[in-house]
Amino acid sequence: MAPMAKEFVTKLQTAAARNDSLLCVGLDPDPELMPVPARDVAAFNRAIIEATSDLVCAYKPNFAFYEALGEAGWRALRETIAAIPDGIPVIADAKRGDIGNTAAAYARAIFDVLGCDATTVNPYGGEEAVEPFLDYEDRGVLVWCRSSNPSAGDFQDLLVADGGGARPLWQVVAERAQAWNRHGNVGLVFGATYPEQLAEGRALCPTLPILVPGVGAQEGGLRDAVRAGIDAAGGGIIVSASRSVLYASRDADYAVAARVAAQRLREEINRHRRDLVVTLGE
Amino acid sequence: MAPMAKEFVTKLQTAAARNDSLLCVGLDPDPELMPVPARDVAAFNRAIIEATSDLVCAYKPNFAFYEALGEAGWRALRETIAAIPDGIPVIADAKRGDIGNTAAAYARAIFDVLGCDATTVNPYGGEEAVEPFLDYEDRGVLVWCRSSNPSAGDFQDLLVADGGGARPLWQVVAERAQAWNRHGNVGLVFGATYPEQLAEGRALCPTLPILVPGVGAQEGGLRDAVRAGIDAAGGGIIVSASRSVLYASRDADYAVAARVAAQRLREEINRHRRDLVVTLGE
Repeated sequence: MAPMAKEFVTKLQTAAARNDSLLCVGLDPDPELMPVPARDVAAFNRAIIEATSDLVCAYKPNFAFYEALGEAGWRALRETIAAIPDGIPVIADAKRGDIGNTAAAYARAIFDVLGCDATTVNPYGGEEAVEPFLDYEDRGVLVWCRSSNPSAGDFQDLLVADGGGARPLWQVVAERAQAWNRHGNVGLVFGATYPEQLAEGRALCPTLPILVPGVGAQEGGLRDAVRAGIDAAGGGIIVSASRSVLYASRDADYAVAARVAAQRLREEINRHRRDLVVTLGE
Repeated sequence: MAPMAKEFVTKLQTAAARNDSLLCVGLDPDPELMPVPARDVAAFNRAIIEATSDLVCAYKPNFAFYEALGEAGWRALRETIAAIPDGIPVIADAKRGDIGNTAAAYARAIFDVLGCDATTVNPYGGEEAVEPFLDYEDRGVLVWCRSSNPSAGDFQDLLVADGGGARPLWQVVAERAQAWNRHGNVGLVFGATYPEQLAEGRALCPTLPILVPGVGAQEGGLRDAVRAGIDAAGGGIIVSASRSVLYASRDADYAVAARVAAQRLREEINRHRRDLVVTLGE
């Protein structure tokens, strides 16, 4: 029996429906790429959020880019999260993973201190390393399954003995993550750059939300990712773009340019969804 | 040909020789466990460091416990690192792992902003996710291989097809990590709670430094871990204890109690080293 959708999933679906969007904007502030007059990270992010908050289903601050700015970065992260409208879920892209009591401290930092709605986690430490996150039943826990980077396969694609056969490690991770979904708060992360694995992940886990980062400028990649990841109800994916939105212009019109880029991505995703529904309905 | 030992390894070996110690004190501040008059995290850590800095080969702040305190925690982390004497390496226990440009931002945070000498990393993203850390040739990169927690084996022990046979995933991780040691700055992390795997890891990687967390109160566990992890030169392990030192007393004498606990652990480790050298020499 599928567990009832809890607060994160509901909030995500509500925002996706209201804004007719599966687009998530990744808030990865890099002062080197920001327009010179906008190098205050929190102010830059606020302008991006104001320009795009009716176009997205979620925002995803990537913690690394805040940590790289030291204590000022943590303040900017808190201010950024505060600037996100209440109805839009905040996904902490932190990929924490550690043994139980350490994982519990990371969960407190992300959920209690920063008030995020969901977080990405790294599965390497096994179930007990993810459990402290899962225990926050109203928050989402997105398990890093098959990553978007060139060396994703180094370990994730290793063939693991399984009964009489063998299958890639990431498939075992996906199935375990699905088994951890006792509170209805588990999702997965699959890089957009590997649509074949994304499609297999969707087949293994038909109802879990899947965060799909790594969407670049190429429309072909986006179409393949949407077609591979979409669930039977025509949703279930959180398609995340960062630099192509944040740095669409590096001049004073950066916020307007970000809005235009986000609109285009939202429309493209929706077009591929509709095409797919038409195809499936034929 | 083994690469030349770089700054981290030299600093570690120098501190270990000067203090005749393979003990690392884990700085995991938990205000709930601190004596009531000492609940200023940076002041507490400074007192612990002053009481133990002639007894250790390294300190290991666990980032989760600082992040759980919000921005004040990051300030306390910076102040804690500043309080560690120059000759003693600081190992960031952060277990970061993410795709390339994100990993590069984490490496900047840990090495440039905070000035740590080494860090633990999570290997799940493959080589390219670890590379930005490796590129800091004078810093140590300790790859989380076989963890100390009860569910360590969920994924780490899965049997991976390898040539005609099969072996646990963590062994593949250990061998890859060794192959990443082009700059002489790679080490491993093995939980003290699994001495059998630690011994196998040492056999696979005879010369890599191994961080061994998870040392508890039981002497038996400590002996087994030392015997399993020690290298041919009688060193090569960094045995980390946290709560048993930090919270040896929860009264005003906590710093003295920490010193006594650290002394006892250092002596125990050294006794097991000596026993082992005698045994090997027979």
